[in-house]
Amino acid sequence: MSNHRLIWKRPLSSLFFAAAALAILFSCPANALAEEAPAMLAQDNANILWTLIAAILVMFMQAGFSMVEAGFTRAKNAGNIIMKNFLDFSAGGVAFFLFGFALMFGNSIGGFVGSSGFALGGVDATTADGMWTLTFWFFQSVFAATAATIVSGGVAERTKFSAYIIISIIVTGLIYPVSGHWCWGGLWGESGGWLEAMGFADFAGSTVVHSVGAWVALAGAMVVGPRLGKYAPDGKANAIPGHNIPMAALGVFILWFGWFGFNPGSTTVADGTIGYIAVNTSLSAAAGMLGAMIISWLMFGKPEPSMSMNGALAGLVAITAGCYELSPVGSLIVGFGAGILVVLSVVFIDKTLKIDDPVGAISVHGVCGAYGTIMVAFFAAPGFGSITGIFYGGGMDQLVTQLIGVGAVFVWAFGTGFIAFSLVKALVGVRVSEEEELKGLDITEHGMESYSGFQIFSNE
Amino acid sequence: MSNHRLIWKRPLSSLFFAAAALAILFSCPANALAEEAPAMLAQDNANILWTLIAAILVMFMQAGFSMVEAGFTRAKNAGNIIMKNFLDFSAGGVAFFLFGFALMFGNSIGGFVGSSGFALGGVDATTADGMWTLTFWFFQSVFAATAATIVSGGVAERTKFSAYIIISIIVTGLIYPVSGHWCWGGLWGESGGWLEAMGFADFAGSTVVHSVGAWVALAGAMVVGPRLGKYAPDGKANAIPGHNIPMAALGVFILWFGWFGFNPGSTTVADGTIGYIAVNTSLSAAAGMLGAMIISWLMFGKPEPSMSMNGALAGLVAITAGCYELSPVGSLIVGFGAGILVVLSVVFIDKTLKIDDPVGAISVHGVCGAYGTIMVAFFAAPGFGSITGIFYGGGMDQLVTQLIGVGAVFVWAFGTGFIAFSLVKALVGVRVSEEEELKGLDITEHGMESYSGFQIFSNE
Amino acid sequence: MSNHRLIWKRPLSSLFFAAAALAILFSCPANALAEEAPAMLAQDNANILWTLIAAILVMFMQAGFSMVEAGFTRAKNAGNIIMKNFLDFSAGGVAFFLFGFALMFGNSIGGFVGSSGFALGGVDATTADGMWTLTFWFFQSVFAATAATIVSGGVAERTKFSAYIIISIIVTGLIYPVSGHWCWGGLWGESGGWLEAMGFADFAGSTVVHSVGAWVALAGAMVVGPRLGKYAPDGKANAIPGHNIPMAALGVFILWFGWFGFNPGSTTVADGTIGYIAVNTSLSAAAGMLGAMIISWLMFGKPEPSMSMNGALAGLVAITAGCYELSPVGSLIVGFGAGILVVLSVVFIDKTLKIDDPVGAISVHGVCGAYGTIMVAFFAAPGFGSITGIFYGGGMDQLVTQLIGVGAVFVWAFGTGFIAFSLVKALVGVRVSEEEELKGLDITEHGMESYSGFQIFSNE
Repeated sequence: MSNHRLIWKRPLSSLFFAAAALAILFSCPANALAEEAPAMLAQDNANILWTLIAAILVMFMQAGFSMVEAGFTRAKNAGNIIMKNFLDFSAGGVAFFLFGFALMFGNSIGGFVGSSGFALGGVDATTADGMWTLTFWFFQSVFAATAATIVSGGVAERTKFSAYIIISIIVTGLIYPVSGHWCWGGLWGESGGWLEAMGFADFAGSTVVHSVGAWVALAGAMVVGPRLGKYAPDGKANAIPGHNIPMAALGVFILWFGWFGFNPGSTTVADGTIGYIAVNTSLSAAAGMLGAMIISWLMFGKPEPSMSMNGALAGLVAITAGCYELSPVGSLIVGFGAGILVVLSVVFIDKTLKIDDPVGAISVHGVCGAYGTIMVAFFAAPGFGSITGIFYGGGMDQLVTQLIGVGAVFVWAFGTGFIAFSLVKALVGVRVSEEEELKGLDITEHGMESYSGFQIFSNE
Repeated sequence: MSNHRLIWKRPLSSLFFAAAALAILFSCPANALAEEAPAMLAQDNANILWTLIAAILVMFMQAGFSMVEAGFTRAKNAGNIIMKNFLDFSAGGVAFFLFGFALMFGNSIGGFVGSSGFALGGVDATTADGMWTLTFWFFQSVFAATAATIVSGGVAERTKFSAYIIISIIVTGLIYPVSGHWCWGGLWGESGGWLEAMGFADFAGSTVVHSVGAWVALAGAMVVGPRLGKYAPDGKANAIPGHNIPMAALGVFILWFGWFGFNPGSTTVADGTIGYIAVNTSLSAAAGMLGAMIISWLMFGKPEPSMSMNGALAGLVAITAGCYELSPVGSLIVGFGAGILVVLSVVFIDKTLKIDDPVGAISVHGVCGAYGTIMVAFFAAPGFGSITGIFYGGGMDQLVTQLIGVGAVFVWAFGTGFIAFSLVKALVGVRVSEEEELKGLDITEHGMESYSGFQIFSNE
Repeated sequence: MSNHRLIWKRPLSSLFFAAAALAILFSCPANALAEEAPAMLAQDNANILWTLIAAILVMFMQAGFSMVEAGFTRAKNAGNIIMKNFLDFSAGGVAFFLFGFALMFGNSIGGFVGSSGFALGGVDATTADGMWTLTFWFFQSVFAATAATIVSGGVAERTKFSAYIIISIIVTGLIYPVSGHWCWGGLWGESGGWLEAMGFADFAGSTVVHSVGAWVALAGAMVVGPRLGKYAPDGKANAIPGHNIPMAALGVFILWFGWFGFNPGSTTVADGTIGYIAVNTSLSAAAGMLGAMIISWLMFGKPEPSMSMNGALAGLVAITAGCYELSPVGSLIVGFGAGILVVLSVVFIDKTLKIDDPVGAISVHGVCGAYGTIMVAFFAAPGFGSITGIFYGGGMDQLVTQLIGVGAVFVWAFGTGFIAFSLVKALVGVRVSEEEELKGLDITEHGMESYSGFQIFSNE
């Protein structure tokens, strides 16, 4: 479909480089080897150091998701949604260790799924290669947890905890790894995925990570149905305000902070491009916040904090695909568009489609993830030669490839997500009873209150 | 005024070093070049890595400011103050990209203002120099946002949101960059600022960053006037307690955490001095907390948490100017003094001057910023030869230079801040109506409640 | 007792390496020196960079402890417990600077206590060695603060603030450094401690840091006695629920985040093993959360959030001793066991021993710290050759050594902690009055409310 690839991540380049350098060295006098080894180690170690630090920052995004999702929903369900976030990282992390990583990065079966590296079997941690693999696994495991945790927001406040456990394991262990293999499988295994081979460009995961979580969330929101009282008998959508906006704001700041691991860290190489990627990430988020603030001001008469925060997240999601290839000015434009788009999408999904997504996860991560991935075809600058240049793009070929990638991942994630939620619904049920939903999931599912001692309106 | 400069930050030293090393290499056999290149890259990359990580830590300080400012004010205004913090980083970041950076670091017009690099024009991201510039820009942009966000605390709970947008853009795009150019302009441009040329020493920005924000906040607090009910008709100052002290405490911890990017990161070089700077930063903050706790205990009869937290911040602000030059024991002394000073200053500004600064921003960032900058003249140890040595200092010349710098930045920031707030007041108004202030800015300015479902006293 | 040591941390290895490399270089032509210096600097600087970043992450754990301890206790005491956390880092940091570090890492007196380096005297910051020492001090100071802050949780909601100040200084300045010297004294001084000499293995401090804090907390909880109303006259234990579970959850996430500095940072070397350690840390925490969730579900009928969160922390504490030597699969097993153990321990201490530990600090940090340290003897893999291998272990010799270490540290920390609390009780009193406890420590000890404006049940 396309025979020119965009610039692509180079996680193993340092090892290739080290091998090349070693080859040079062995043709030198013996003492050169002793002298040169530290230099190579310094860069190799720097790559591991940077990848680890970036992974730690991305891990902290779990706290951000928890605070955003709990803050934007009601006090009576805060403990429940936080338990789901812990679960995504715990059960999800174990599932990704046991089989998710192997399905995503193992040796490819026809470009569709990986097949080696279960429980990291065969990795020798005493070698440079093994040390790199373990660091790479940690970085990928926090990405997998990110995809999973997006789901919890979309099905918040009415989903059974036991059902969610099954879904969380399926997402991190199966749904995310398979479409991830299509796009990124060649980063570790000997052969890569079919979308990767076509030249599909998604540097840090607008589609691979964020949209996957969002499309499963969409399937979940449809199967589970809206919260009680969300839609009046006449079809009017009622707002159900979140209980702690400062906490949600903290969550947005934490996500913003963690995204500087997510995007620049996706180089997995500590070189000069990481600052460039951070600039693009920062500008797109800023513009996204401004875009959402302005459009909400125009549409609703006031600058709306929840929409503005989702605008910042939308800018972050949208730039994730093209953070390496876009120019800073291109990033500003893409981010500003994402901020506008997310507000329109939230209203459309809520009022027109009547799908109840309590925190806007589908709009932020799905709609803006797809949008950002497609924008790469218009704005990507090969070799990032200019700061202010805007329109480079990969031409019609690249646009078609991007659309195929976005579409294929949608079909996979939404389809398998719908099947998974439907199966769980048939087998164990996905939804709490009406009485449990009214009382709140904290008391009924977990036997606790999140804010013991505080007076809270009984109807919230 | 002074012909001996204190040790000074060396952001471009690695590039100079690389150039020097390249010169050596070109006089060597050809294969030496191939062998040596990685070694230089490793250090250059480490510098970019460290500067990026430090910038990410400083970026997270925005979350800290939000939590501190929201926690120390009332629940009915929490969403509003958080929106202002988001705005500082969003609109402020864009303004700093488009023109703030150019005014601060561009080629100097007579030492007073920069004039090149608008929208990073002319930067070639494919070169080592361009990669460094982009990383440097990101680091500087989060500093600019820090200065801006200090203002929001000083004018909290009564300022119109639309007015604040204009102020925020003026601070990040104009006020902060111009005085910043005087002190730091030579870090990137070919020629530097007039205070820099005199030998004014402010390593990481006690004056350049913190006091600028505080002096604009002082101007704002004077133009906007005190909150309703703050001062009784007889002139007595009423305490208006903050609504969420644990949230404010979290904010203080986040700021403390981020300050380890702010101060050690200001080397912009990953060398052995960053640990030294961290030690000084840590000890000054600890001593500041202790100083404020003890003096509040003596003055008010109990160890006051809000004062103690502001004491830690005061210690951090005060050591920012001299974190590179002071000894650890000197840092302990300067920090302890800042903790005492901030409590006295808060009481003086509140009760004697009757200026309403809801979070103590003027005392923490302005008074302690000036104090810390002046202390450099007494405590700075050239070549930091000793851990326990205390009094080195730069002599009377250095003291005069420090006083000129502190004074000039005060005149500039307070003067332009006063003009800006006065102009905005005349053109669009700076203050919400009495009814809006009583209802709270969350409902009236943003159409939302921060704590939906919680019972909150109606008169708060 | 044992003449084979497990793999051990190598904080000064880079300096030894540099010295060795220098020796090689001086036997080379003169220009080789000029060429090689940067290469060594790059790795040395990377070690300092990584150690500093890890220390910054560990410093942020203070915020995590604050949020966990405040969230799991009542609203009326939130400001008090946060003040104690600030104090641990402030007064504790100064005490560790003045004498704690010297007692822990100074030249050993018979393997029992260090005796040099008070106030870092004699350190020359202009040398590579001095720069390293300062960075190492900062890393160790945040570890000392971690040990101290564990105590505040165990004695929460009824301890006098003035008494706690004395305890905090004794823990960071004396109790923690002395047992720390036994295990880690050789990392900086010329001779090390007696447990170190035996081959006691505690890589990052399950025993050295976490259990010390917990055993002092145990002594404190016994001396101070349970909270009013905790135990009914018939001996039945009443649950006193925490007031803000989302805040506690944030604290757990922050601790989890900071632990990636705590464990991988304990290499103090930026090499390939840091990713490996992060993998083990991540998997043990995940398994600990799952273990606690499952056992609480079985025991109480519902998956309990507080228990699950403590399970994650238990997994983190338990893997801290063996994070460098265990395999990932071994880490999963050890973490899962810690999650089960912490629930059983909390119930046993609360209901059977009737010791009132409001946040479960003794179980999380003491019981699971001892457990994790002992597990090293069963699971440690010399040279970490395999990912899935589980049982290597050091044999009966290692088990005996581990038991001696765990036991000796318990006797020291519990014994001196008991003496310290008893002395403080006799001299100034350790407990607030009944009336003060009922009103809450925020009002009575600090003259403030943590949640001004919120309606809170008067009996909480």
